[in-house]
Amino acid sequence: MINRQIRLKKRPQGMPTPDAFEFAETPVSNVADGQVLRRTLYLSLDPYMRGRMSDEPSYATPVAVGDVMCGHTVSQVIESRNPNFRPGDIVAGFDGWQEYRVSNGQDLRAIDATRVPMTTAIGVLGMPGLTAYVGLIDIGQPQAGETVVVSAASGAVGSVVGQLAKTRGCRAVGVAGSVEKCRYVVDELGFDACVNYKTADFRSALAEACPSGVDVDFENVGGAVLAAVLRLVNRGARIPLCGLIADYNATTNPGGPNLRPLLVNRAMIRGFIISDHTERFPAFLQECAPLVASGRLKYREDVVDGLESAPAAFIGLFDGRNFGKLIVRVSAVSAG
Amino acid sequence: MINRQIRLKKRPQGMPTPDAFEFAETPVSNVADGQVLRRTLYLSLDPYMRGRMSDEPSYATPVAVGDVMCGHTVSQVIESRNPNFRPGDIVAGFDGWQEYRVSNGQDLRAIDATRVPMTTAIGVLGMPGLTAYVGLIDIGQPQAGETVVVSAASGAVGSVVGQLAKTRGCRAVGVAGSVEKCRYVVDELGFDACVNYKTADFRSALAEACPSGVDVDFENVGGAVLAAVLRLVNRGARIPLCGLIADYNATTNPGGPNLRPLLVNRAMIRGFIISDHTERFPAFLQECAPLVASGRLKYREDVVDGLESAPAAFIGLFDGRNFGKLIVRVSAVSAG
Repeated sequence: MINRQIRLKKRPQGMPTPDAFEFAETPVSNVADGQVLRRTLYLSLDPYMRGRMSDEPSYATPVAVGDVMCGHTVSQVIESRNPNFRPGDIVAGFDGWQEYRVSNGQDLRAIDATRVPMTTAIGVLGMPGLTAYVGLIDIGQPQAGETVVVSAASGAVGSVVGQLAKTRGCRAVGVAGSVEKCRYVVDELGFDACVNYKTADFRSALAEACPSGVDVDFENVGGAVLAAVLRLVNRGARIPLCGLIADYNATTNPGGPNLRPLLVNRAMIRGFIISDHTERFPAFLQECAPLVASGRLKYREDVVDGLESAPAAFIGLFDGRNFGKLIVRVSAVSAG
Repeated sequence: MINRQIRLKKRPQGMPTPDAFEFAETPVSNVADGQVLRRTLYLSLDPYMRGRMSDEPSYATPVAVGDVMCGHTVSQVIESRNPNFRPGDIVAGFDGWQEYRVSNGQDLRAIDATRVPMTTAIGVLGMPGLTAYVGLIDIGQPQAGETVVVSAASGAVGSVVGQLAKTRGCRAVGVAGSVEKCRYVVDELGFDACVNYKTADFRSALAEACPSGVDVDFENVGGAVLAAVLRLVNRGARIPLCGLIADYNATTNPGGPNLRPLLVNRAMIRGFIISDHTERFPAFLQECAPLVASGRLKYREDVVDGLESAPAAFIGLFDGRNFGKLIVRVSAVSAG
């Protein structure tokens, strides 16, 4: 059996280009005692992968040149010599940009796909949702009546941040990159307002959307968006720093915002990496899985077809082309 | 009786110049029932005063144009119609850049100057010392074996930060602006190292001085110093943000450091303003007053003579001309 893979061919300078990736075919290894073979159904594409393509110091080991690109996956068990899994099982894992994987199964989590679609396991009920939960609830500590701003508001993380902020009685203000995304964030997700950062009057529009200032800024973007939000922070504001996507493809040190508002307003920025907080997964699921099942916590997926589509779709993450959680459909579910 | 004052004449653009101040003479008001008249002995000059000269939004009301400049003082009671004070008493207050003041005394604190010099009440045992204590101990939370970096290390706040860090079993690394200051910080104050930020190899020298990275950065300066320290922060680093003196005289928005190190290292920056933390004054004094009295907590004063010297001395704060806590000797202590 042949395993189709996408490997890192070279480390990109700046914005990744398709030639940073290469296709490869390799035989699927045999299944030893205790092991599980599964086929990838869905692959999650996320901005953090840009960091793994670089060998700058970071929180995680980079993908080696020549290795399969990493990524969260939903898969179906094909063959199992592990008592915990049976053929046909749907599992979530971190199998990367490839069709098949064999391992001892310790990195797999069984999914009950009867109440919610299985793709939620790599989206609203997976790593992106947990990121929103930990960043907003644990670090942002939103209080009823406060204003929560979130950048990349229509994305996999941002969309959950704003909806959770509403459950805590907060005013939720999104920042997104198009009229269509802003409309979705307000009309579908129920944010109180959403501001398009690509318009010339972004700063004044953001100020208008936050008439009582900003108490929590869930920061995904950095750059000019963060600089604009910082000018509005209230005394004691909390800024969970989740991502700096505006900088990820910078080839020179991009600088940052002036920090005077932090000083004057006794505000706090705290960076966090979701892999430090997996102990919060049960609490997150307990709150959010019922909300997703009942349709109260909404999400949007942007599904592209075929493993070969992954590089172009991934590159599109950095110019805001995608709309919703970006997922690659790698294989069809097998009847059994 | 005539009260000599220095008033804010106009709001400076950028670095303050002597013509931002004006001298004035005005009669001392009569002492009403319950009031206390005192003569200023020592006036503290501090970087925060630059903020009070501006009308940009800040944490405190600016000094109005035409008003007496604000400032912490040590004074001697001349006349009292308040049972809590007697003529001759030495008191600490916030009487500003003037020779005399009358008030109801609620803003005064009696000083016992028998064990330590009275000037310590506006320096190592006053607001600057408390600032060091709260920022380092409460926000920085240094643990034994960690590395603490402090900028403006020979100054009123920085010198206390490093010495307190040593009491907690930390490696204390200073950043200062001259060979002489660096020598003082290491040889007199007992820091483990001190790096001159005005040298071309500052970044590499700082990295050498912090072989295990930086766990706490007590930030007084901002600008290039903060940017250099950020590149060295360890996982979970804490950065109490006390001042941004490098920016205080900027006439355009000076930008700031790239925040990627915060994200990658799960680090935290928290701005604080010492006036929020006066409830910590007793704990601070309990720990630090005996250390000062016994000579274990060292301090250095830079005393200039005469109220008329205050404007030029204050301006010197921003180019690092002074060395030690800057104090103006306004009047001599009266025998009784």
